[in-house]
Amino acid sequence: MIKVTVMYPYAEGARFDHDYYRTRHMPLVKARLGSACAYYTVDQGLHGMTPDAPPAFVAMCAFICDSAEGYEAAMKEHRAEVLGDIANYTDIVPVVQYSEVVVERSDR
Amino acid sequence: MIKVTVMYPYAEGARFDHDYYRTRHMPLVKARLGSACAYYTVDQGLHGMTPDAPPAFVAMCAFICDSAEGYEAAMKEHRAEVLGDIANYTDIVPVVQYSEVVVERSDR
Repeated sequence: MIKVTVMYPYAEGARFDHDYYRTRHMPLVKARLGSACAYYTVDQGLHGMTPDAPPAFVAMCAFICDSAEGYEAAMKEHRAEVLGDIANYTDIVPVVQYSEVVVERSDR
Repeated sequence: MIKVTVMYPYAEGARFDHDYYRTRHMPLVKARLGSACAYYTVDQGLHGMTPDAPPAFVAMCAFICDSAEGYEAAMKEHRAEVLGDIANYTDIVPVVQYSEVVVERSDR
């Protein structure tokens, strides 16, 4: 099982519409990925190590998928639509990484 | 619900013992956090946006908790032990951030 994590670096004054991201963008991407994505998660950054430090990322999401190949194949057809929607909620360029899921959740 | 995410930035030649992290360090932290932490997740970075690009983070974990206050209170007593164990698996200084869990998992 793999995870595609998309992270939006904090930048003073940058725009990020968390409501649009949660209610519009993420459901859109999931719909396009279909069964290639088991589920996704969404986090909103609060702060860094201390409450007065900004978070490294204002928002993070992860797509949990059976394989990177499945994710890529599903995304390939819809990349233009998905990337084109980003301007609707942010002007931040996200950092993307692929990870192996080592522990999906420790209580299961 | 909040998430404390701990991210280990990729650095050429840096040391990271994924086996120790999964089998020793993470269970130790969970044991010390007790009921303040509902569960944790562990990821191992594979690559960046493209397969030939290094991942931003070689490893990432997240502690899903009811509150930041609960996490802090539980961690306070055991911080020295937890931080002291880091040298056993890496020489990378992690990035830590607190997030609000917006979507815990989209299929539930």
